[in-house]
Amino acid sequence: MSKLSTATKRLLLGRPFRSDTLGHTLLPKRIALPVFASDALSSIAYAPEEIFLVLSVAGLSAYAFTPWVGIAVAVVLVIVVASYRQNVRAYPSGGGDYEVATKNLGPIAGLTVGSALLVDYVLILAVSISSAAANIGSAVPFVAQHKVLFAILAIGLLTAMNLRGMREAGTAFAIPTYAFMAAMAIMIVWGFVQIFVLGGDLRAESADFELVAEQTDLTAIAFVFLIARAFSSGCAALTGVEAISTGVPAFRKPKARNAATTLLLLGAVAVPLFLGVVFLAGRIGVVVAEHPATQLKGAPEGYEQKTLVAQLAHTVFAGFPVGFFLVTVATALILLLAANTAFSGFPALASVLAQNRYLPRQLHTRGDKLAFSNGILFLSGVAVVFVWVFDARVTQLIQLYIVGVFVAFTLGQAGMVRHWTRHLAVETDPAERGRMIRARVINGLGLIATTAVLIIVLATKFSGGAWIAVLMILVIFVLMKAIRRHYDSVAAELEAAEWDGVLPSRTHSIVLVSTLHMPTRRALAFARATRPDTLEAITVNVDDANTRQLVRDWDASDITVPLKVVESPYREITRPVLDYVRRVRRDSPRDVVTVFIPEYVVGHWWEQILHNQSALRLKSRLLFQPGVMVTSVPWQLRSSARVPKDRIDTVPGAVRRGLENEAGHRPAKQEEDQ
Amino acid sequence: MSKLSTATKRLLLGRPFRSDTLGHTLLPKRIALPVFASDALSSIAYAPEEIFLVLSVAGLSAYAFTPWVGIAVAVVLVIVVASYRQNVRAYPSGGGDYEVATKNLGPIAGLTVGSALLVDYVLILAVSISSAAANIGSAVPFVAQHKVLFAILAIGLLTAMNLRGMREAGTAFAIPTYAFMAAMAIMIVWGFVQIFVLGGDLRAESADFELVAEQTDLTAIAFVFLIARAFSSGCAALTGVEAISTGVPAFRKPKARNAATTLLLLGAVAVPLFLGVVFLAGRIGVVVAEHPATQLKGAPEGYEQKTLVAQLAHTVFAGFPVGFFLVTVATALILLLAANTAFSGFPALASVLAQNRYLPRQLHTRGDKLAFSNGILFLSGVAVVFVWVFDARVTQLIQLYIVGVFVAFTLGQAGMVRHWTRHLAVETDPAERGRMIRARVINGLGLIATTAVLIIVLATKFSGGAWIAVLMILVIFVLMKAIRRHYDSVAAELEAAEWDGVLPSRTHSIVLVSTLHMPTRRALAFARATRPDTLEAITVNVDDANTRQLVRDWDASDITVPLKVVESPYREITRPVLDYVRRVRRDSPRDVVTVFIPEYVVGHWWEQILHNQSALRLKSRLLFQPGVMVTSVPWQLRSSARVPKDRIDTVPGAVRRGLENEAGHRPAKQEEDQ
Repeated sequence: MSKLSTATKRLLLGRPFRSDTLGHTLLPKRIALPVFASDALSSIAYAPEEIFLVLSVAGLSAYAFTPWVGIAVAVVLVIVVASYRQNVRAYPSGGGDYEVATKNLGPIAGLTVGSALLVDYVLILAVSISSAAANIGSAVPFVAQHKVLFAILAIGLLTAMNLRGMREAGTAFAIPTYAFMAAMAIMIVWGFVQIFVLGGDLRAESADFELVAEQTDLTAIAFVFLIARAFSSGCAALTGVEAISTGVPAFRKPKARNAATTLLLLGAVAVPLFLGVVFLAGRIGVVVAEHPATQLKGAPEGYEQKTLVAQLAHTVFAGFPVGFFLVTVATALILLLAANTAFSGFPALASVLAQNRYLPRQLHTRGDKLAFSNGILFLSGVAVVFVWVFDARVTQLIQLYIVGVFVAFTLGQAGMVRHWTRHLAVETDPAERGRMIRARVINGLGLIATTAVLIIVLATKFSGGAWIAVLMILVIFVLMKAIRRHYDSVAAELEAAEWDGVLPSRTHSIVLVSTLHMPTRRALAFARATRPDTLEAITVNVDDANTRQLVRDWDASDITVPLKVVESPYREITRPVLDYVRRVRRDSPRDVVTVFIPEYVVGHWWEQILHNQSALRLKSRLLFQPGVMVTSVPWQLRSSARVPKDRIDTVPGAVRRGLENEAGHRPAKQEEDQ
Repeated sequence: MSKLSTATKRLLLGRPFRSDTLGHTLLPKRIALPVFASDALSSIAYAPEEIFLVLSVAGLSAYAFTPWVGIAVAVVLVIVVASYRQNVRAYPSGGGDYEVATKNLGPIAGLTVGSALLVDYVLILAVSISSAAANIGSAVPFVAQHKVLFAILAIGLLTAMNLRGMREAGTAFAIPTYAFMAAMAIMIVWGFVQIFVLGGDLRAESADFELVAEQTDLTAIAFVFLIARAFSSGCAALTGVEAISTGVPAFRKPKARNAATTLLLLGAVAVPLFLGVVFLAGRIGVVVAEHPATQLKGAPEGYEQKTLVAQLAHTVFAGFPVGFFLVTVATALILLLAANTAFSGFPALASVLAQNRYLPRQLHTRGDKLAFSNGILFLSGVAVVFVWVFDARVTQLIQLYIVGVFVAFTLGQAGMVRHWTRHLAVETDPAERGRMIRARVINGLGLIATTAVLIIVLATKFSGGAWIAVLMILVIFVLMKAIRRHYDSVAAELEAAEWDGVLPSRTHSIVLVSTLHMPTRRALAFARATRPDTLEAITVNVDDANTRQLVRDWDASDITVPLKVVESPYREITRPVLDYVRRVRRDSPRDVVTVFIPEYVVGHWWEQILHNQSALRLKSRLLFQPGVMVTSVPWQLRSSARVPKDRIDTVPGAVRRGLENEAGHRPAKQEEDQ
């Protein structure tokens, strides 16, 4: 088993490295911004488009509302950014909303946030990749025709990279993120310059298409509902803002202040870009339809609808294709980057949850790359299913998305309000109180805003797919609760157990023997080295001939330990030994029995199938006997040499946890002394 | 892992029993005959039909040859029976052809026989079940329309029964086998009586159909080839004769003589029944076509071709439907019985091969029901694939079949010839020499006959599907050789290893501690009970807070053992411990280090996922360290109580290995004292 796992690890994870010590690995703001902002900024690639898509259902006239919806989203974005600046100041430990909710609203709320975020990471991956596919598809028709395939391959690639412990240097984030910022900024500015300064008449290719409304003469309610849906889809732009609050420890001192400043920068970049895209798109008359096939009239034959960003770039940089491609590439890159954050966020969160015993413990020990890998495989597996089922259509996936984020947002903000209220109860210094009251107002606003969005999201998207996300959150929540309950009950059971403190009076050692070879001799030697009160060797008579041979060899040898033969009419090993040990225990209940089992240590997983099977079985059964110890005495076969010693692997998200340094890696010290 | 397997066992294998001691479980001839003859006799249900089917290709005229082909098969059958009577006398140990070939022709030949028989068991299962489906289908049209489904369900049922350790009482064999003999005998006799005594004119329903030849005006060669193919298909009647030679130990004394007599009885029953069916079918003009849809003209609308046996019964017992149904039921039952023999033969053979280290060792220990189950699942899995791929058509499957049997036959007979020649070289007593020479002549005849058949089978069926069987035999052969080579190389490696015989000078014990709870205390107590020269406790600092807490508790407690804290910057457990142990070893290489690991013992497999994971990982890695022992100190959690102690389960084929008594089972003694 463990052989197998090791083999698999070698296969998947490749030659691992050891990252440097924690010395100077903290991030300066110029690096921290891209590292933590990629997620939030990337949503600008699809959030504006979603607004247009949703409204397209009501026909071109509805587009008139896009600026207002955009502004509404921007306002919420500003509020949320402001609120999180309070969070990072109050909770610089990097626990994020999970910590805030747990500390102020109790474990239930915390666990809810945890479940919500776990689900959300899956969707970040699915949505970002799908959007990346769509954007690349706008430049490369072939990709557009095989979106799903492309998306799944991309997820596979990211998975493999993360399993192999891809190095996550800050610069790897910096370049694409800044490139994206620059590309978008230039595009927007140059677009408006052409329109207002040079007075050119920019028209998107799709501006001349006729957009067929799917729902004509909507009732007022229905129309409001549509606007609300557009708004909630647009709120996808907010996702990722919380990222910084979980990364405070990775900042340089003063951590909290720097984190807050970075958040400010993020807001200062995100809001204009977002609004710029919305306004420019509206101005040049970009037309995107939720169902191009049926809604677009007058489009050229076999027209593959391009993403909104691509259409902007295409129009703005008309006659300058390089510009178009740069924007597309930058967009695709930052989306892949955002998708990749899921691979660091998911295991990191799982590790925190495991620490609180909501998930299996081994997920907590960062070193256990394998537990990590399981998390990664689970993550990408589910994401692939989503991409597949929803045909890599961002508009569909968005329906499931955001629910999780805003559950976290809302509970996080509620927790912050609680937090300030608690502190105000004890705080006396007026200046300090002033700050706290202001902070509470801001978080209060945040709470109201996020709650409103959450309600709108649920109301407008529940039937559209949000229910799936809600269901998943519930299932994960219940599961984690069950796990916690199990751990607690075990802990209680151990509490209850009485320790009499007396030592076993005598030690009775039994060496299990099949044939008289080196492993057996070593087991005997080691057993004698522990100087037990009684020492005997037993063999199970599975095959008369072999047993007779063994007894002859035994008598012929220099071994003084007595050999007992246990009968086994049905040629099995486990039970006769169990019975024998049980008898020994019955005769002297106060003694402790040590069973020495010689074991082969092999290098290939398939060798494991050929050896030790009975030993393994026997061990696992012996452990059920009270007062029995099982000692494995290994004999290393040559092949065992080929198994590498454990090493530390680069784990995803090392950068954002401040474990990774710019300089990168050096092979593990351990390497040398082997 | 073992939890899981135990869980699975409980699920699949049900409440197990313990069979009685080996006392009076040996078989009287009247029981031995049905137990071992069912396989051979069952082939009478399809072998004759195959002759007709093959010849049908050349049209009705070719049917003229059926009697001659039948006689040829009967002759071979007689010869083979005679030969095996020599086998059982010379090798009463029950090793069968595998033993004969190995002892006289060397391991290669033996292994070939082994591989051939393993493949053959799969095909016995597939063919018998398919034939049973066809026969039942002749009475129940619904089954005829869903042959494949029915066959697969039947295999599934047999698998489940055998996994649960179905009781295999001799009577369970006796009734259907004798019923089949009786039914067939009565049918044939009554048929001929009607024809020759009462002078009635029996005509099969299908006699009036027009049989369209698929190959008209065949060349002489082609026709001979066709006859040969019919013959080789007919030789399916010989399969199962070897069964007795593997069951000699289950006979009452004088074993060899009784086995030989039983073989004689088998021949005395099989030959007349076989010929009777062939002749009667020819006489009443039964028409069966390989491709009924195209070959049968004048058949009623939607005519489902009935099996030859069914047609006989239908005609002979015209106006007495009970007779028809009795014959069909008896035929179906004996075919199921024959199919079931695969479930006992396959694991038994695997066990012998494992004993000779051609298969993983645990297959040898009969008690390990789980290894057994794997064999059974493998067997039925492959059989299902065959039934599916070949559409449960016996005629197709027969193409693959027999190859294995006749490979075994041929090598077995060759071995016997060698055997006698060897003994003749040393034997002096003329009477004895006379016997031996006669025996050698008989086996020589057997060798010639079986070789001839094998060549004909390969020549006429290779392209038709026999190549698949040959390929499988080769693959299995190579695989088993590889396994044996591995075991041998390991053995050689151990031989080579030098034993210096000196004991480790001192014992250095390390107790691994995570928190100070009962399991830890027990581990400490047990460790101290072994009175090591040095004893220390170490904990890996995965989480500062927890570690500080632990240290506080430790100091507060009455524990005198020193606690060392090992740093782990990356929150992993395995490597820091490995490094520590390595250091200890480096400081005092002559010592033996014992690492005590407190372990939870839990009752549900899913609990295993929640506990001990790091412990398991650590153990498996520590074993790679020379001079290190790993001791598991179990702490049984309450849930562990629900895991039942190991018990003996009834294993398939107990009867034919003389492990099963007529009286059946009593619950294991072990049951009471728990």
